Amino acid sequence: MGDPAGIGGELTLRAWQALHRHGPCFFAIDDPQRLAALSTQVPIVEIASPEAAHTAFADALPVLPVSLAAMAYPGRPDKANATTVIASIERAAALCLSGAVGGMVTNPINKAALYDAGFAYPGHTEFLAALTNASGRQIMMLVSPDLRVVPVTVHASLRNSIAMLTTEAIIAAAQTTAAALQRDFRIARPRLAIAGLNPHAGEQGALGDEETMLIGPAIDALRAEGIDASGPWPPDTMFTAIARSRYDAAICMYHDQALIPLKTLDMDHGVNVTLGLPIVRTSPDHGTAYDIAGKNIANPASLIAAIELAATLATCRHA
Amino acid sequence: MGDPAGIGGELTLRAWQALHRHGPCFFAIDDPQRLAALSTQVPIVEIASPEAAHTAFADALPVLPVSLAAMAYPGRPDKANATTVIASIERAAALCLSGAVGGMVTNPINKAALYDAGFAYPGHTEFLAALTNASGRQIMMLVSPDLRVVPVTVHASLRNSIAMLTTEAIIAAAQTTAAALQRDFRIARPRLAIAGLNPHAGEQGALGDEETMLIGPAIDALRAEGIDASGPWPPDTMFTAIARSRYDAAICMYHDQALIPLKTLDMDHGVNVTLGLPIVRTSPDHGTAYDIAGKNIANPASLIAAIELAATLATCRHA
Repeated sequence: MGDPAGIGGELTLRAWQALHRHGPCFFAIDDPQRLAALSTQVPIVEIASPEAAHTAFADALPVLPVSLAAMAYPGRPDKANATTVIASIERAAALCLSGAVGGMVTNPINKAALYDAGFAYPGHTEFLAALTNASGRQIMMLVSPDLRVVPVTVHASLRNSIAMLTTEAIIAAAQTTAAALQRDFRIARPRLAIAGLNPHAGEQGALGDEETMLIGPAIDALRAEGIDASGPWPPDTMFTAIARSRYDAAICMYHDQALIPLKTLDMDHGVNVTLGLPIVRTSPDHGTAYDIAGKNIANPASLIAAIELAATLATCRHA
Repeated sequence: MGDPAGIGGELTLRAWQALHRHGPCFFAIDDPQRLAALSTQVPIVEIASPEAAHTAFADALPVLPVSLAAMAYPGRPDKANATTVIASIERAAALCLSGAVGGMVTNPINKAALYDAGFAYPGHTEFLAALTNASGRQIMMLVSPDLRVVPVTVHASLRNSIAMLTTEAIIAAAQTTAAALQRDFRIARPRLAIAGLNPHAGEQGALGDEETMLIGPAIDALRAEGIDASGPWPPDTMFTAIARSRYDAAICMYHDQALIPLKTLDMDHGVNVTLGLPIVRTSPDHGTAYDIAGKNIANPASLIAAIELAATLATCRHA
């Protein structure tokens, strides 16, 4: 469901319109009344169990119902609905763990609106790690038609991202990425391109020493355990079409090093994949977008891509 | 000329092949013998003055001769030729200052090979600033068909780039950029997009305070003097096609924030323009490339674009 005041509901309806003829089959865990109020054009059918989605999907959006406590108004988040938002996430995770579904896709939430209801996690990812008893570290991979990127450091200032960078964090991110590419993307021997941090990857130390002190040793350690890791690459030339053809994922040192090339190449089809969970989970690469919620102008491309990718990953993982 | 052991000579010959039918007209300041040795397919004609280039250009590459002290071997830089390399730059700058030519394009040099000959500048730009008695600060603009970017900080580690960032430097870069866009690009009212430094442009201080402490005040000051400056923009979404349509140049906080989107969008046609000189000067966006010099496999696209852009800028400036 995601935040019922955000664009998630209308995008779910439009994703069904885009996918109902050919699939992949999906269902919403949402409040049927509030979805029906968002569109008169999309037929909705309540289902009692995930299995029922298969037969229903061609003709209507299947909805496994949860009930909102309060009326949902686009653009106006309401704490009264926080417990239902949380319950929809818990329900999806439980269905993934039980094997009843192949994976889950999360619509954007508003963490601030959930904190007051007792939500004690920085975001979806940490909540799902707890719900699924995930061991190890979860990391975010962003996937677009042209590029896969994994930022080693994420939501910190650029200054702090540099300070937080360690050989261990680079190794862990690359290991998790290689394992996920093998298991969920069916790439037998994933090629990882490890980015430098500094201009020209430091120019042999003239423009910074993180390449020789932190990144190079991480690459050596990864190679020693048989992972095909190359670099450190000069950040400005590693995202050209030719360079991209030589690797399966780029391990990036900070948020914008990963996100600038991804969004510059393709703003609309980026999908967020959480690596390191025992379940398949993707999400669209945008937020609740309260400013345009309810206007039916939000672009469903990223949610559609997230549903398609979750189906692909689930197929690979369970094959 | 640039470094005669680099790819500059062969690219000059190929640029003539690409441009001799339609122009723009240019000539080389180079050693005719060494150019002739690089290609039997391109006719070369020595000229005694820039004016002679106009009639010669359609049939042969015009060369205003300088003589190398030593034989030039591709891939093998030779200090013995440093004085001639330097002389070719001095000659070009003098011709620009006199008005005999509209602008100059520099092939890549190897600074290390020049230092031993007494070259006392960090690079071309500082040397040209001295030769032309330039006042104020010179900055680099990178221009591709899709994007113009100006990095406020350039050749420093990422950590030092952050430390070097000041409101004054941002203002100076934006002022120089706005003036150049007006004078040399004929954009009456240039729109400048000022990038944030941190992910999501700092998210109101949650992910870094440079936006509120340094960048925001620079934007305010620029607007107060009538410059159309907007931002600070989230770095990851400001280089999409729609975002790019809303500005004429992006003022970037560090090297890779500018170079990643530029090279990701177009690796081959980037041109370096030096802003803040009294003369028009462009250069291709690559180095001497000793590893492929003499093999005639280097891509001339950036040099060709640099020549075309220099001609356009000269026309605008002198119109």
